Amino acid sequence: MKLENTITAENINRNLLNVNYAVRGPILDRAMQLERELEKGIEKPFDRVVRANIGDCHALGQPPITFIRQVVALAACPELASSPDIPADVKERVREILGDCTRGSVGAYSPSLGLRVVRDRVASYIRARDGGVPASPDDVVLGAGASDVIKTVLTLFAGDQGGKPPAVMIPIPQYPLFSGTLAELGITMAEYYLDEEHEWALSRFELERSWREASEQCAVRALVVINPGNPTGQVLSRENMEEIIKFAYERGLFLLADEVYQENIVSKPFYSFKRVMHEMGAPYNRMELASFVTCSKGWAAECGLRSGYVELVRLQARVRAALQAARGVMQCPTVLGQCVLDCVMKPPAPGEPSYPQFAAEVSEVQRTLRERTADAYHTFNQIPGYSCNPIDGSMFAFPRVEIPERAQQAARELNMAPDDFYCLRLLEETGVCVVPGSGFGQRPGTFHFRTTILHTRDEFRHMLLSFARFHRAFLQQYGDERAMTVDM
Amino acid sequence: MKLENTITAENINRNLLNVNYAVRGPILDRAMQLERELEKGIEKPFDRVVRANIGDCHALGQPPITFIRQVVALAACPELASSPDIPADVKERVREILGDCTRGSVGAYSPSLGLRVVRDRVASYIRARDGGVPASPDDVVLGAGASDVIKTVLTLFAGDQGGKPPAVMIPIPQYPLFSGTLAELGITMAEYYLDEEHEWALSRFELERSWREASEQCAVRALVVINPGNPTGQVLSRENMEEIIKFAYERGLFLLADEVYQENIVSKPFYSFKRVMHEMGAPYNRMELASFVTCSKGWAAECGLRSGYVELVRLQARVRAALQAARGVMQCPTVLGQCVLDCVMKPPAPGEPSYPQFAAEVSEVQRTLRERTADAYHTFNQIPGYSCNPIDGSMFAFPRVEIPERAQQAARELNMAPDDFYCLRLLEETGVCVVPGSGFGQRPGTFHFRTTILHTRDEFRHMLLSFARFHRAFLQQYGDERAMTVDM
Repeated sequence: MKLENTITAENINRNLLNVNYAVRGPILDRAMQLERELEKGIEKPFDRVVRANIGDCHALGQPPITFIRQVVALAACPELASSPDIPADVKERVREILGDCTRGSVGAYSPSLGLRVVRDRVASYIRARDGGVPASPDDVVLGAGASDVIKTVLTLFAGDQGGKPPAVMIPIPQYPLFSGTLAELGITMAEYYLDEEHEWALSRFELERSWREASEQCAVRALVVINPGNPTGQVLSRENMEEIIKFAYERGLFLLADEVYQENIVSKPFYSFKRVMHEMGAPYNRMELASFVTCSKGWAAECGLRSGYVELVRLQARVRAALQAARGVMQCPTVLGQCVLDCVMKPPAPGEPSYPQFAAEVSEVQRTLRERTADAYHTFNQIPGYSCNPIDGSMFAFPRVEIPERAQQAARELNMAPDDFYCLRLLEETGVCVVPGSGFGQRPGTFHFRTTILHTRDEFRHMLLSFARFHRAFLQQYGDERAMTVDM
Repeated sequence: MKLENTITAENINRNLLNVNYAVRGPILDRAMQLERELEKGIEKPFDRVVRANIGDCHALGQPPITFIRQVVALAACPELASSPDIPADVKERVREILGDCTRGSVGAYSPSLGLRVVRDRVASYIRARDGGVPASPDDVVLGAGASDVIKTVLTLFAGDQGGKPPAVMIPIPQYPLFSGTLAELGITMAEYYLDEEHEWALSRFELERSWREASEQCAVRALVVINPGNPTGQVLSRENMEEIIKFAYERGLFLLADEVYQENIVSKPFYSFKRVMHEMGAPYNRMELASFVTCSKGWAAECGLRSGYVELVRLQARVRAALQAARGVMQCPTVLGQCVLDCVMKPPAPGEPSYPQFAAEVSEVQRTLRERTADAYHTFNQIPGYSCNPIDGSMFAFPRVEIPERAQQAARELNMAPDDFYCLRLLEETGVCVVPGSGFGQRPGTFHFRTTILHTRDEFRHMLLSFARFHRAFLQQYGDERAMTVDM
């Protein structure tokens, strides 16, 4: 009979079957199941699940920035302006934003690229960040987070080129938004390894190797660089960035700079790719570029409000038009998200009523990040069998873990990757939920996991102790004989 | 030298070059230019531009529903709960929603399918709408408007099938979200004409013709039906729906029901495809279905807040998993948008503090829609050379316009479609901005335009008069001799 499903795994877009996103993968599913089991009173070797799988600061207890939330609330409900709780600069900001909304309503569609007032603010922010390098609001496209605009830009590269399938170069380890989106778009990933021995730097030699190998079968179109790194947390040196730019120039690659953690840096200066290109002079200052920023990161960390932008530098007009048409079909990004971006791009300034509270809140976010990165770095390098590069920024640690051969064997018997096995055991025995390195990619034979580090101080100490104790027991079980002294 | 752009119209994803979205096309660009010219004091034959190109109620002056805005504001800024302006049921609603947000913050990511509390509410709404037909929150995927989830579902059909390119059947006229998205995905559009002579019904004969012709070259995978119609405004009869369902069943097509105007109906009962399938019994009650709803339409009309859902009925588990993975990469839809959907799915009930104001606001929206549809229908059928089918719902009129042969000739000389020419002239001479029928598709040799009808009463009268006067002058210029008496 005809009563089969009309769409099945056998006849849907096969690219979709290749989409994986480890950050929300099976380990998280198991963690949520464990949470439900704990709620039901089922006995576990831990009293709570600690989610450390996703860079979601508010979910870890970071309070929102009051100015942002007041602006959003008042933009949604301008009648609240009479409330004594709303400072004058919030009212002024909302007046400015609503002045650019049709009939003053956030419920009207904005232009598909975003409100002009917000795009102007983004351009000003970029100019200030880059020491005056010109920036135009016409180059700014707002989106529902960086993911949204990254996907739009990657869409440009789908489809064969001169009979060859397209490829885009991505770092390994990488943030799996890239691998997931490229898989959906049917674009080959040309992987280049970050150099763990040199603080996750990019090596020109390795870039060339990756490009050369991919070019045998594919048309390599673009290069993705994540700086500060996710999951790796490094901030690239200016020299390294210059090397990368020269490589992209010589190989005719479009550069995508994922710079979403630019406000989450604890040491080292941040240079944007745009600025470095500009200051390198010709011919590099005439290269195209896409640079991504999101309000889900930085001190705002408003993940759930979905806001971000891409600056598209020196795109050909017809390419820009095609991209704009595709964005237009989806109407516009959320206007309340655009309000968040507006606040991030132009936060309260000294002398304004909201400034003191704003400054205190941001300072606390920064202090926490500094403290956690130091703690994580210190602890992970104390646990025998763990090692961790310096964490310059982002909100993650990505320690390397030695997994004994007997444990690797046990994993293989369960048809699991050794790091998946390790992280699942960690979860089952400690309640701590991290993401295995294989979800980001890693050099064969090495094993890592990514953990967020933005928990409250006590929770974070609890996590670090859990890692140390678990690893000791793991090594005992799987027969590593090394000494196990850890001071915490 | 190497200093060409690395990405050009010649080497990007060629699908993107085929994306058109007339609702935000060149006529709107010209309208915005005219607005700027008027601001500068440049003389025009009109004193203002009237935008009637997009179904954006707030942009046309419809005030937002207070309950929705209060919930959104309080969810963003829970400290405002002390404000005397916030009713108790708003506080209670926000408490319920935030109770399902991690750590009670809308700034935390929600699950990628949406908050459980909201998806539960959607399922309850669907059950009530459909007279008790079962609905599960597990079948509900929340998105940033219907566009977002429609695109996700259409993505399932990309890629060749047994060596044949895929095709999806769409109505003509259609809402160009479908043509634009299918173009981006490289899916062939198998067009079927709605029957203008029978109030835009679907004819089984025409569906078969379209399917047969497309099947010669393509694997036809799915059927899109828009009910209530956009741009056409008809509400399908139950008999017609049954015919469509039988056709989809027999041809093994997946049915996509764009039902976003289900709350914008002035006459006739609305039946969802899900309900009709269910009540038809076996085998139709075991068919798959995707049904779309958005908060941009209905009485909420919160276009800028980006919220909607798809109910995916009876999908194969592996298909669902693939779709969920692709959604997961993009994290989650805006949580404040999810709050809007929550309010729409469960508005204030009689006896609750917000009910009286809510009921008055919704009643005014409905009264306006009834009045405007009657006015539009009446007027468009009075203008000689215009004709318009009954408008059962939506927020548009799609009148047919006779364009004299000499005017068609003049258009061809400018390399324009006759209806593009007509609408551009209308804009230049009256300031009224509508979308040419060619942006939606129409039978060759027929001409239409789509206009929104939700302006304030005076503005709408002004528009209708503008159409009548313009058309009279247009016919005078291009030599039609008919009598021109119009009573307004």
